[in-house]
Amino acid sequence: MDVRNEQYTHKVGVPPKQNLFKELKATVKETLFADDPLRPFKDQPRSKKFILGIQTIFPILEWGRSYSLRKFRGDVIAGLTIASLCIPQDIGYSKLANLDPQYGLYSSFVPPLIYAFMGSSRDIAIGPVAVVSLLLGTLLQNELDPKKDKEAYRRLAFTATFFAGITQATLGFFRLGFLIDFLSHAAVVGFMGGAAITIALQQLKGLLGIQNFTKKTDIVSVMHSVFGSVHHGWNWQTIVIGVSFLAFLLSAKYIGKKNRRFFWVPAIAPLISVILSTFFVYITHADRKGVQIVKHIEKGINPSSVKEIYFSGQYLLKGLRIGVVAGMIALTEAVAIGRTFASMKDYQIDGNKEMVALGTMNIVGSMTSCYVATGSFSRSAVNYMAGCQTAVSNIIMSFVVFLTLLFITPLFKYTPNAILAAIIISAVVGLIDFEAAILIWKIDKFDFIACMGAFFGVVFVSVEIGLLIAVSISFAKILLQVTRPRTAILGKLPGTTVYRNIQQYPGATKVPGVLVVRVDSAIYFSNSNYIKERILRWLADEEEQLKESYQSNFEFLIVEMSPVTDIDTSGIHALEELYKSLQKRGVQLILANPGPVVIGKLHASDFANTIGEDKIFLTVADAVASCSPKLAAAQV
Amino acid sequence: MDVRNEQYTHKVGVPPKQNLFKELKATVKETLFADDPLRPFKDQPRSKKFILGIQTIFPILEWGRSYSLRKFRGDVIAGLTIASLCIPQDIGYSKLANLDPQYGLYSSFVPPLIYAFMGSSRDIAIGPVAVVSLLLGTLLQNELDPKKDKEAYRRLAFTATFFAGITQATLGFFRLGFLIDFLSHAAVVGFMGGAAITIALQQLKGLLGIQNFTKKTDIVSVMHSVFGSVHHGWNWQTIVIGVSFLAFLLSAKYIGKKNRRFFWVPAIAPLISVILSTFFVYITHADRKGVQIVKHIEKGINPSSVKEIYFSGQYLLKGLRIGVVAGMIALTEAVAIGRTFASMKDYQIDGNKEMVALGTMNIVGSMTSCYVATGSFSRSAVNYMAGCQTAVSNIIMSFVVFLTLLFITPLFKYTPNAILAAIIISAVVGLIDFEAAILIWKIDKFDFIACMGAFFGVVFVSVEIGLLIAVSISFAKILLQVTRPRTAILGKLPGTTVYRNIQQYPGATKVPGVLVVRVDSAIYFSNSNYIKERILRWLADEEEQLKESYQSNFEFLIVEMSPVTDIDTSGIHALEELYKSLQKRGVQLILANPGPVVIGKLHASDFANTIGEDKIFLTVADAVASCSPKLAAAQV
Repeated sequence: MDVRNEQYTHKVGVPPKQNLFKELKATVKETLFADDPLRPFKDQPRSKKFILGIQTIFPILEWGRSYSLRKFRGDVIAGLTIASLCIPQDIGYSKLANLDPQYGLYSSFVPPLIYAFMGSSRDIAIGPVAVVSLLLGTLLQNELDPKKDKEAYRRLAFTATFFAGITQATLGFFRLGFLIDFLSHAAVVGFMGGAAITIALQQLKGLLGIQNFTKKTDIVSVMHSVFGSVHHGWNWQTIVIGVSFLAFLLSAKYIGKKNRRFFWVPAIAPLISVILSTFFVYITHADRKGVQIVKHIEKGINPSSVKEIYFSGQYLLKGLRIGVVAGMIALTEAVAIGRTFASMKDYQIDGNKEMVALGTMNIVGSMTSCYVATGSFSRSAVNYMAGCQTAVSNIIMSFVVFLTLLFITPLFKYTPNAILAAIIISAVVGLIDFEAAILIWKIDKFDFIACMGAFFGVVFVSVEIGLLIAVSISFAKILLQVTRPRTAILGKLPGTTVYRNIQQYPGATKVPGVLVVRVDSAIYFSNSNYIKERILRWLADEEEQLKESYQSNFEFLIVEMSPVTDIDTSGIHALEELYKSLQKRGVQLILANPGPVVIGKLHASDFANTIGEDKIFLTVADAVASCSPKLAAAQV
Repeated sequence: MDVRNEQYTHKVGVPPKQNLFKELKATVKETLFADDPLRPFKDQPRSKKFILGIQTIFPILEWGRSYSLRKFRGDVIAGLTIASLCIPQDIGYSKLANLDPQYGLYSSFVPPLIYAFMGSSRDIAIGPVAVVSLLLGTLLQNELDPKKDKEAYRRLAFTATFFAGITQATLGFFRLGFLIDFLSHAAVVGFMGGAAITIALQQLKGLLGIQNFTKKTDIVSVMHSVFGSVHHGWNWQTIVIGVSFLAFLLSAKYIGKKNRRFFWVPAIAPLISVILSTFFVYITHADRKGVQIVKHIEKGINPSSVKEIYFSGQYLLKGLRIGVVAGMIALTEAVAIGRTFASMKDYQIDGNKEMVALGTMNIVGSMTSCYVATGSFSRSAVNYMAGCQTAVSNIIMSFVVFLTLLFITPLFKYTPNAILAAIIISAVVGLIDFEAAILIWKIDKFDFIACMGAFFGVVFVSVEIGLLIAVSISFAKILLQVTRPRTAILGKLPGTTVYRNIQQYPGATKVPGVLVVRVDSAIYFSNSNYIKERILRWLADEEEQLKESYQSNFEFLIVEMSPVTDIDTSGIHALEELYKSLQKRGVQLILANPGPVVIGKLHASDFANTIGEDKIFLTVADAVASCSPKLAAAQV
């Protein structure tokens, strides 16, 4: 009894009332400035604040001061490695976006440079990526034919890129970066896997040398195209070249995976394949036997495309819509990469600042003939393993691409398309993450449904539908959580004053005459009615059990409110209705441990008075103790 | 030390693994059958199940068996009262929907009859209501001109009614009724208030006798219309009649509110006004002096309108869209009324069954020349106060309307429109709920924003925009809750083993070297990253404080997980990242009291092994106790 009396000295605390402005400020701060970006600015003189501000926008000015030759060596090696990987990939990816090959290279020149000055990730490798290229290509060709309206198509691509950049920068500037968190990890895994399969299937065109190929991306149409042309569409020379180099690339990948010291093998294999196959085609004149080749890549660096962007007319809105979607997906990929590597090396990344950097880079890119660039999963991993130290590796890569554009592009003339297809396939297989899918299945079945929904949506219908399914299921999960929160019956763990869920702790014992229910969520309009009815159903269920064992009914219902972090008007109404219903049944409602916000609102709404201040306790144990003497008296 | 050792005997319980099918079944049951509608069917013979099934569809067969003369007397009085109230209201409301007056009466004949057989609320009064009439009228006239295309307009109205019924019945049948809970109480209060003001403003046309009146419903356009016609559009005879009867009606309302025994005064005042004013216009020939009158109401009961519903063509989709919106709003109103009175008289209402009843009644209604009917706030209150016992009061009302349609409609010829306007105004002022708005302001500022958003959206823009604002803000609130959950630093209440939020309990003391953080929400993809960063920020903040007071840093971080009801793959990843970050800082991560679902997933993902089983405790007190000896040793 000592302990209880001691505990009784503590009443449920009512936090001091904050004024409205403070409350609002706190909410806005927690929502938009959760990472406290202004912390370093605190208590600094104005000149220092200015320097800090500039450094915030251009982090290179901060880390650049401690840059060393040792770091530079790491960056050069990493930069050269990712350059050798990106050049053939860029040429292939631009095909996914239905653009000429040089636009892929352009996008690996300007955006990485801008990012190196503004971005805060040290490991990300910037450039065109497979999934965004495919998404952009699919969305653009819904509006315009990439062959018939070549110029308009390209202009729409720049317009979309411009608005993708605007979207990214805006989200970052207004600190709305948390919006991309609504695409769940599981949905992204499924989407990426589906996109990888779709992209790989698309490559069958190049790999098999098929001329007439469907424009649709779903597996049924593609397979129809592939097998429909089996007799008069496949080119055996192309197949030989493509399949043998694909085997080479996949073996290189396998070697790199088996032994991390050989990470450079898969990294340079694509460039070696390009060189070998180009030379082979050149000397054998295989192009005259139906082996399709790249033919022509424009020489020279990025021309200006400011005037190509549609700032008016019907394509403005279309470009905006496509840009928003492509920009969000590109963001999701870049931020995921940035976070992964930041947590591996334990440095902080400001997601919102990162978005401003990515946005700026795409806005500038759209004006210099680039299409949407972002962080590439595969190249970032290679960058990391090659020992990159800072974003300087992106500058090195950018410089190599610059030299390539100036001097080497004509050499790509005889590169067979089949090699590009093989390179893309070997790049995207890494996006299919079986292990993640298995882990998701183990941990959360609902997540697995989202993952599979996105996957099958992309594979069987289209990239947009897959994306839509992924987002819808993710949202549905959130809504389900707030609509149908868990509730649990608590029992006392023997020998303690601890009350726990009796399903989890079968040893916990119920107190006769007292039902303890815990509500595991904030009580809001979306669940208030459910919670009220669920509590009454617990009561009815338990009373039925009591009746079977000829015990007397409940006199007290204790609602453990520790997990109830907030309550709104509908929630208060539900509590009032619960109170009335219980009164009619002769059951006393008791609340245990309402949190600071909840107790404040219980007082504001006068409900605390309605049930009586003395019916609100600090702990379940206190609440039960308050019932017990009466019960004891009743049992005499 | 005794107590602690005793507590140590309890490990964190891992609930037995359920198989997938059971888990899915439980989720589906809790989501769709939360109210356990099949409970009475359990363990019954087949014949009994059949009877129960029939009674479930037609509750009248259940309560009808215990119907008595005493109940009938109550129902007759209530039925006559609401009939006298509904007849003038119906004629006015049909004008809001831009339909001829008889359609309002039709809708008070068939739907209440159907409802009486299928519905489970004993107090609701069925018929056309102001807000739904206005909403329907606004949406319909966006598509068709009610004067120029009178027939097509009426047919579209029936089509919309049909689909409103289909929507309602479908939601109920598939037990998706919880969807209407997403329109929060606060949003409904604001929406209703705004709609009431809009409706009242619309009545200025009739009340002032203005001929040319805007079709828009926003306050600016309406005021422009009113004051633009002040010199040559107002009719003083109309104003005298309208204003004096409005004063009469409002006084009657006031009397009824002051003394509940006189509830019948406001209930019969409208009919008295109609009779008096009609007689007055008839003898004074005021209609020749510009006082507008009803002129003509079709005599006879509802004609069939099956063939008028558009089952094909462009209006099918339009009718569907309008029907879905109107149906949902009608549902919201009816279910809110049903629940309110059910909780006042303490009986249960099955929301989903109720929706099937309302849906069926509107489907049948759409085929018998009725437009969307639902439960009326004002008439249900009168019904309740007049002592209704069962839905038989609706049958009585329906019978009176039937007689009216057959014999009395010609008498309404000389009823001035101004009286109808006055009746509508006096009816809708009750929808403006100042007290609720004040309570919402007191309890929850965010709710208040939703309330005001809906209100001003309706008043200044349009009904649809107000509705859209209300729904958007409601959703935003849910999303904000799951994106930015609360976290708190816990301290020990002196003399207990209870750990509580130090903001709420300023007396709670921190344990040196140990930081205890509570996470107040399930950890999902939408908040996992935030939670991880927020915990690290707590750590940084607290360490800064320690540094200022020259204390040593933290060695342990205890995450109190009692409120964490669930965790998904992203959440597990976030915990892993948190664990790694803490390791690099030399801080040990400890978990306290994970719930059944969470501990299961911690094991499934192997994270429990990663941090060590011995780092997961039943209570915060246990966790702290496990740190203390080491701390004590370190301090020697």
